Amino acid sequence: MGTDNNKEVAMIRRIAGNFTRHPFQVNQLMEADAEIIPYHGEYLVLKTDGVHEEIKTKLYEDPALIGWMAVTAPVSDIAAVGAVPEGILLSLQLPQNENEDWLAKFQEGINHACRHYNIYVLGGDTNFSDSVSISATVVGHIKSGRPLLRTGMKPGDCLYATSLLGAGNAFAYSRFFNQALEIGFRPAARLVESKVIRRYATSCIDTSDGLFPALAVLSEVNIVGFDLQTPLIKLLSEEAISVHRHAELPEWMLLAGPHGEYELLFTVAGEKQQDFEIECKSEGWNPVYLGKVVDTPHIDFLSGPMKVRCHPSGVANLFYESNGDIFAYLESLMQQHKNWVVEFNQAP
Amino acid sequence: MGTDNNKEVAMIRRIAGNFTRHPFQVNQLMEADAEIIPYHGEYLVLKTDGVHEEIKTKLYEDPALIGWMAVTAPVSDIAAVGAVPEGILLSLQLPQNENEDWLAKFQEGINHACRHYNIYVLGGDTNFSDSVSISATVVGHIKSGRPLLRTGMKPGDCLYATSLLGAGNAFAYSRFFNQALEIGFRPAARLVESKVIRRYATSCIDTSDGLFPALAVLSEVNIVGFDLQTPLIKLLSEEAISVHRHAELPEWMLLAGPHGEYELLFTVAGEKQQDFEIECKSEGWNPVYLGKVVDTPHIDFLSGPMKVRCHPSGVANLFYESNGDIFAYLESLMQQHKNWVVEFNQAP
Repeated sequence: MGTDNNKEVAMIRRIAGNFTRHPFQVNQLMEADAEIIPYHGEYLVLKTDGVHEEIKTKLYEDPALIGWMAVTAPVSDIAAVGAVPEGILLSLQLPQNENEDWLAKFQEGINHACRHYNIYVLGGDTNFSDSVSISATVVGHIKSGRPLLRTGMKPGDCLYATSLLGAGNAFAYSRFFNQALEIGFRPAARLVESKVIRRYATSCIDTSDGLFPALAVLSEVNIVGFDLQTPLIKLLSEEAISVHRHAELPEWMLLAGPHGEYELLFTVAGEKQQDFEIECKSEGWNPVYLGKVVDTPHIDFLSGPMKVRCHPSGVANLFYESNGDIFAYLESLMQQHKNWVVEFNQAP
Repeated sequence: MGTDNNKEVAMIRRIAGNFTRHPFQVNQLMEADAEIIPYHGEYLVLKTDGVHEEIKTKLYEDPALIGWMAVTAPVSDIAAVGAVPEGILLSLQLPQNENEDWLAKFQEGINHACRHYNIYVLGGDTNFSDSVSISATVVGHIKSGRPLLRTGMKPGDCLYATSLLGAGNAFAYSRFFNQALEIGFRPAARLVESKVIRRYATSCIDTSDGLFPALAVLSEVNIVGFDLQTPLIKLLSEEAISVHRHAELPEWMLLAGPHGEYELLFTVAGEKQQDFEIECKSEGWNPVYLGKVVDTPHIDFLSGPMKVRCHPSGVANLFYESNGDIFAYLESLMQQHKNWVVEFNQAP
């Protein structure tokens, strides 16, 4: 790995670090998945997110999926701060002569997601462009209680996800390398689960960028590391297990890539662990336990027979170092795996 | 002109008309420059706007101008509904290796505009792309009183603009056809003027798309026409007069193009005209009187020696019919002018 710093965080600081921020804004740069402002004794919550790369690389081609994801991506961030979404504004760049069938399916994807999350299209802006590109801003609110931030976790806290992970990377692998695998993808933002999580969690982020990139951000903003005690094989969703088996990809790779699964990743203090798990069960879902927050900046994990310790940004940076070249990226993942196998076999 | 309908309005209805709208939203599609939702006895106001075409066509190349306009465009819409802006979210698409100098100037343009409008960057989203493209969402509020809509004008109402017009098209002409003209451009959203306007106006729109396109929208949503009693030469800003003289462009052409000047265009009922003008004067500015709202769907105007009557969307549609080809567009403007000269000379 070239450097120890998280390259995405560095990029965001370089581009957004010089902007003057709102004096009453709850979250500083990188501290939360959405922007939070006190408003009439409540919090107003806003988030802009886009579907650009996924369309350009043809990861998403189905217009219904593009519409669904344009809404789901920012709503997932609203869920990660414990807020309730209200409406969405769309910034669309579409080819001037996009066909009616494409447009109807795209609109249905948007409407379907809006109905699912009980939100409405408030407005937007449409421009013509050579290719499709979509950005969306969701507005929401927190009526009572505090917002969830990415910051706040302490060493010893338990790390959880709302569900099994890896579906996003499994989908990406099948799209780019082996379409015969037929992996489906239509994640839903975890608004329901967020209502319980916000009452227990010490911090939260969504896994829209994948597990390892999310851990890299959490490590950077909290100055901590993670001991993933649960073997990665037990964290993988059905789709990820399928790719793990058929493509013989090591477990960790399905949690490494930047195409995430839109689960929530959060921490709960040890003394609240039991109450939290009981309440989740009473609400009809079971959080997935990953491990513990530790005070040293590394990630320990178990992938196959290997026990690996890496820098928190090590895995996340592999994608940035590939400059978006998906074949170079897979190669660098494979090379990293080989290095770890050698290290593991040489360990005393 | 190919058809009588406004082509931009038709495009927006085609793309956005099928989305489910918020049940409490004040404005229907096309009815306001920004989205307005009742919120705790006030109104929450949101607007997404983008700087895409202006960058692609190289109308804007100066990064400081791009930053300034990315903020000014949506803030101008916030002014047009009589609201106060609070903060902005940026959706940036930037080349991965955009140089530091470009980035610093762009950031300074953003920060400069935010200071000018007393707002803050709340957050955003950055993606890498081959070319620069920016979309921004402004959030604002109306603490008391009603929002201004594009709808509400009645025949007999007086039509005003906050200042002289044509600077946007003069700038575009100089950029595309004669850079030696050295026309500057840095419009400011009319937030101060908006505070008086909102207490008097029956309707309002900004001229971000130019005067004739704004009139076309107002005509379509109010089912009215306009009698521009003031000769167009008296409506032109210094920059527009300069291009009118040096490039020998007819007056109306400087008000025709889609690159507007970000003034507010609004109507005041006849009986309030005097009070309104007195109050503006006491606030240190003079609105520009254009003419009257009429109940028949056409625009009458005086350009040079000509008295012209055209369909409200006639001038606005010329740009859409040119498919974004700026040379074809200038040619179609010239052809339209020739046709009107022939008609005028043949008139009894």
